[in-house]
Amino acid sequence: MRREITGFSNPTVKYLRSLRDKKYRRREKRFLAEGLRLLTDARECGRLPEMLVMAAGRNRHSLLDTLERDVLAAGGEVVETTPDILTKITGKDNPQAVTGMFREFDTSLGSLDRDAAPIWLVAQALRDPGNLGTMLRTADAVGAGGVILIDECADPFSVEAVRASMGAIFTKAIAQAEWGEFQSWLRSGAGQLVAASLREAVPYRGAAYAAPCFLLVGNESRGLPEECEAACDLRVTMPMRGRADSLNASVAAAVLAYEALARLDP
Amino acid sequence: MRREITGFSNPTVKYLRSLRDKKYRRREKRFLAEGLRLLTDARECGRLPEMLVMAAGRNRHSLLDTLERDVLAAGGEVVETTPDILTKITGKDNPQAVTGMFREFDTSLGSLDRDAAPIWLVAQALRDPGNLGTMLRTADAVGAGGVILIDECADPFSVEAVRASMGAIFTKAIAQAEWGEFQSWLRSGAGQLVAASLREAVPYRGAAYAAPCFLLVGNESRGLPEECEAACDLRVTMPMRGRADSLNASVAAAVLAYEALARLDP
Repeated sequence: MRREITGFSNPTVKYLRSLRDKKYRRREKRFLAEGLRLLTDARECGRLPEMLVMAAGRNRHSLLDTLERDVLAAGGEVVETTPDILTKITGKDNPQAVTGMFREFDTSLGSLDRDAAPIWLVAQALRDPGNLGTMLRTADAVGAGGVILIDECADPFSVEAVRASMGAIFTKAIAQAEWGEFQSWLRSGAGQLVAASLREAVPYRGAAYAAPCFLLVGNESRGLPEECEAACDLRVTMPMRGRADSLNASVAAAVLAYEALARLDP
Repeated sequence: MRREITGFSNPTVKYLRSLRDKKYRRREKRFLAEGLRLLTDARECGRLPEMLVMAAGRNRHSLLDTLERDVLAAGGEVVETTPDILTKITGKDNPQAVTGMFREFDTSLGSLDRDAAPIWLVAQALRDPGNLGTMLRTADAVGAGGVILIDECADPFSVEAVRASMGAIFTKAIAQAEWGEFQSWLRSGAGQLVAASLREAVPYRGAAYAAPCFLLVGNESRGLPEECEAACDLRVTMPMRGRADSLNASVAAAVLAYEALARLDP
């Protein structure tokens, strides 16, 4: 269905805008992804928005035409609105913007097939949505299965995480679980849990990674709780030649993931 | 000197607040660094703020006492103000916050000693201050000399970059230059320029890195201009097993830097 919205107080505008807030996203199980490139990535992975929103008078683009056609064919809505209203929804002053509203995916551990990939990234209490999105992007690059979020993490469906993922939000598996639940799931099958650690750790380079390999990084300020480190099958450490004792969490995950990739799937 | 500020319209408050804006930072050659940990890192590297600002009634802390003493001994100012005014200056609602105003460092290429380290990170047109700060943090971790910023990059003295650097802004060299100027400087001495590239590149792993090795990454959306890639002595590529053809810029720099470190300074 196609429709036009010209009023700022239109309930659809309010609804879409509310999805920038985690509380509403969680309740509605819907999220926004912005930009033609991201939406095209999603389409090519078979993920279509339930609603596509764009400014009237936007320049035509063949990828946008394809997207519109596919959204309509799938029973979704295409909404044309004014640049001002679109700015209100997205918070960005770009009348060329296109936004899609998607249904959130299943993020239960049960939805994962651990044997689908040699590497999985795992983050415990990761707070920064940019780091989370970057980890998804890295997961895509190393051919990892996806990202598993332990305990209270940033929301993978936030606009920032979706943007930083550069489309990987649509291609990689995402799961969310409490630590205990993750432990039970992990130990119910094959899987090596590896922590980036400073204690009793072997050099990350040439360590005995084994697939499926779950690479665990911790919170940006506190690192990993002792309990999590203790539960790992392997603790590895990266050289720290300077004053600081840690890397950015998404950087640590990437350096580890590329090392594991070289060992597991060269 | 010690003083107390209780008025929102105090010129010092306005001045400090203006330093959150790049235009004023550039003119005044001053920047802000927030938090006791960052300020303590700075102090331990011999960098003291010209002005230290904190809220009256703040909890005492021995590191803060040391900082105050050193700032006063060096002829700097210690300013006590209200939590509300501090919030106005920093934009953050944290009455425990401490902020320091520093003089910007020399960022000319001439200030660098290329032989001081085997690795240098170089970014061309990097736009995200978080990525820039993360590169500084990685430079610290791998024992790199510092970060060289080519063409129009994010401001290394922005609050965001300073924060993401986790103190490395005070310990690592930073230089800013146009591409041509950097080329002249680079070729006036020893130095291998290495690009993370997709074209005519050899695998990044086991490539023939040579010290001093300058690892070059490009803009977040456009990557490196052809001219820059062509000027490199070595082009290396990282496996891309997914849909995307690039990594986050600070992630790419880190994966490369750790590989170069393993070859040059194992």
